[in-house]
Amino acid sequence: MPLLLEGWLDSERDRILATLVDWLRIPSISAQPDHAGDVRRSAEFTAALLTDAGLEHATVLETPGGGLPSVYADHLHAGPDAPTILVYGHHDVQPVDPLDEWTSPPFEPAVVDGEVRARGAIDDKGQVLFQVEAVRGLLSVGDGGLPVNLKFLVEGEEEVGSPNFEALLDAEQQRLACDVVVVSDTDMWAADVPSVCVGMRGLIAYGVEVRTAAADLHSGLFGGAVPNPAHLVARMVAALHDEDRRVTLPGFYDAVRPLSDAEEASLRSIPVDEAAWQAMAGVGRLEGEAGRSLLERIWTRPTCDVTGMSAGYAGAGVKTIVPAHGRFTATFRLVPDQQPDAVGAAFEGWVRSQVPDGVDVEITRMGGVAPALTPVDHPAMAALCHSVERVWGKAPLFTRIGGSGPEEALGRVLDAAVLYLGVALPEDRFHAPNERMVLDQFWKGLLAAAELWTELGAAGS
Amino acid sequence: MPLLLEGWLDSERDRILATLVDWLRIPSISAQPDHAGDVRRSAEFTAALLTDAGLEHATVLETPGGGLPSVYADHLHAGPDAPTILVYGHHDVQPVDPLDEWTSPPFEPAVVDGEVRARGAIDDKGQVLFQVEAVRGLLSVGDGGLPVNLKFLVEGEEEVGSPNFEALLDAEQQRLACDVVVVSDTDMWAADVPSVCVGMRGLIAYGVEVRTAAADLHSGLFGGAVPNPAHLVARMVAALHDEDRRVTLPGFYDAVRPLSDAEEASLRSIPVDEAAWQAMAGVGRLEGEAGRSLLERIWTRPTCDVTGMSAGYAGAGVKTIVPAHGRFTATFRLVPDQQPDAVGAAFEGWVRSQVPDGVDVEITRMGGVAPALTPVDHPAMAALCHSVERVWGKAPLFTRIGGSGPEEALGRVLDAAVLYLGVALPEDRFHAPNERMVLDQFWKGLLAAAELWTELGAAGS
Repeated sequence: MPLLLEGWLDSERDRILATLVDWLRIPSISAQPDHAGDVRRSAEFTAALLTDAGLEHATVLETPGGGLPSVYADHLHAGPDAPTILVYGHHDVQPVDPLDEWTSPPFEPAVVDGEVRARGAIDDKGQVLFQVEAVRGLLSVGDGGLPVNLKFLVEGEEEVGSPNFEALLDAEQQRLACDVVVVSDTDMWAADVPSVCVGMRGLIAYGVEVRTAAADLHSGLFGGAVPNPAHLVARMVAALHDEDRRVTLPGFYDAVRPLSDAEEASLRSIPVDEAAWQAMAGVGRLEGEAGRSLLERIWTRPTCDVTGMSAGYAGAGVKTIVPAHGRFTATFRLVPDQQPDAVGAAFEGWVRSQVPDGVDVEITRMGGVAPALTPVDHPAMAALCHSVERVWGKAPLFTRIGGSGPEEALGRVLDAAVLYLGVALPEDRFHAPNERMVLDQFWKGLLAAAELWTELGAAGS
Repeated sequence: MPLLLEGWLDSERDRILATLVDWLRIPSISAQPDHAGDVRRSAEFTAALLTDAGLEHATVLETPGGGLPSVYADHLHAGPDAPTILVYGHHDVQPVDPLDEWTSPPFEPAVVDGEVRARGAIDDKGQVLFQVEAVRGLLSVGDGGLPVNLKFLVEGEEEVGSPNFEALLDAEQQRLACDVVVVSDTDMWAADVPSVCVGMRGLIAYGVEVRTAAADLHSGLFGGAVPNPAHLVARMVAALHDEDRRVTLPGFYDAVRPLSDAEEASLRSIPVDEAAWQAMAGVGRLEGEAGRSLLERIWTRPTCDVTGMSAGYAGAGVKTIVPAHGRFTATFRLVPDQQPDAVGAAFEGWVRSQVPDGVDVEITRMGGVAPALTPVDHPAMAALCHSVERVWGKAPLFTRIGGSGPEEALGRVLDAAVLYLGVALPEDRFHAPNERMVLDQFWKGLLAAAELWTELGAAGS
């Protein structure tokens, strides 16, 4: 059976690419306040794009809390028996540092060698655009209608951790109501090994600062008789893992749901090349929780990483002080059924137990995202797998993402199953210089989106 | 018996203070390259001061290695039977940060409430000046001669760790030859508890940098499967001490010479108020090597303090990375008979044993100073104690200094006993904002210096 949009697409490629290039020229960097105007311009571009493709009610959504704008649009003519699908993506991008490592300017898109190279090419403008163009395609072929009720939500603050996203979902719950969310912001195992993501890890982060003295002290005159916050921070950070690199936090693993036999089998089916993965990571060794495979370590096991640590003077030369304070930031990646609040409470209690009397400690919680996991036996998952198989020619593997995002909130607040239709490749340099999108994956994503809506529509709500 | 210079001093105080104020106006900050010209100006001021006081051959000594200049002068007319004394001090000063904590500008000396407040007032221009003016006084009274052959060496790089000082001593060994060194750069236990220092701890410092990855990695996508240098640095720093806060380095305590009964008794004779010391340190608790007193911890026991440590991003908010590298600086304070080279070799070997394959480590040694200890039964020590007793009205206690300086090299290269005639008080805010010198101590130091030369001259070489 031919793919629905194959014929239509043949004459549209140049126009679609030109649109993408225009969009990518907008430096919508959400992390940098001086680009706030560009993020707004990108939101307006997105709204116009959605309207031009045939969607209705395109609206720039102001974010509760005064954040950067998201964009909404819909096409709700499939009738009450058809399911309602919400496509999620984002139009903001990462900063471009280090600029001198780019081979072409990040906001002057280069279309070469079957790739588009620009900041935002794959993360996430390209992945939003293939969904939008699939809508235009379906409205242009056959009976000119959509098989599902479709909504788009294109966020403007994803790259800064979606600080106001849950508030936006709460405020717009009625407008955003849906049966299934399709996230278009993830990757595949490889171009010739199609896969669909079924979950992401949760995240909770803490800043811990200890203060032992009013000011730095001379290490000769006071050293040996006063507390040293570098030692205290080091003892705490070192104590977060045991010899087997398991997290020592009391009760940390209690809520971890064991993998089902199907999940174990699914993990084993993935062709892992550890040497290649290590080379991609650019590390000289792999290490992690004892007795766990690479994929378990990055996908299905919870972890703790200290992302920053400092005390005293660590520049060139030596400053002979006992520092007055030290700090570290600990992040925990969570898996089902761990809850950020429970892990957070355990961490806060543990830190306080480590700090002796006479030393001040300040603990700052920074956000919290629960893990997200879509059951592989959800009916919508079958539709997703069929669509991917039809386009890539192989049944997809099930993968997960070790990272964390607003997907858990989407599923929870909107009470909907979350599917991931993502076409990025691990080598696409997310967040790095020379970010790229492989065009073959992009066109396949467009075709797969149309297949997916159609199959979901046929299945009913 | 009246003090030699008491009468002379009465009419000299205003002139001496005016000289001190002029010298303190020169911001001779050796740590800051843009003050190199000021350090040179201070050296020229010092040379003029020495000449004006009656010393001869005043010379700005260029430092081997292109460092900042020291100053030499002498007065060698006491004959071959009189001993030769070398006075050591320094004319460079510490940086002034944080500037906003000064109650008067650091280089506009304020003479108020019986104190001089300025950067360098006590560390060390004031302490050099009382020695210089004692020379002028002795040349002005009695027979107008000096009872000893006297040399001055006033360093210009003490506050940056005397990087070229030993080379200078080697190069000028003949010119600097002496029987006794008198260091004028230390403190007393209290204004009403006179004391003389008998030793300083040695010091060796190391920078350690580990690199685990080519670049920072996404903590969600890679965390749990790659080495985290923050964890590795923390494990190393934590492992440097055991539960009893003893240094774990193999063999670290092997060379530590036990205290003699006399030294034990001397330590016990010092009236320690731990609460007052803790308040002065500005810390909420005291801690250190188990089973050791406060004075042992800061004077007679070797220690390890990590003076700086960093990995990843420790600013506001969270950056979800596994850092690519981390580092720390470890300093060891050494006591007789520990040797910097032996401790250094043990540390380097230990660090390499802690770093797993596949992680790069770079170890940088930063200087090394052996501990210095003057026997309390040295004849010159008796002269020093008598002089202090005559001026302060009480026999001095023996103290040590936990810090480290060029004194060990002075004694070793010049093969001379090292005495410490210092009048600073622990509350004089060495290296801190609002550094001060108490004038009563300053005048007493001047009187004591004259007594000391005279007693050493009477004793013969």
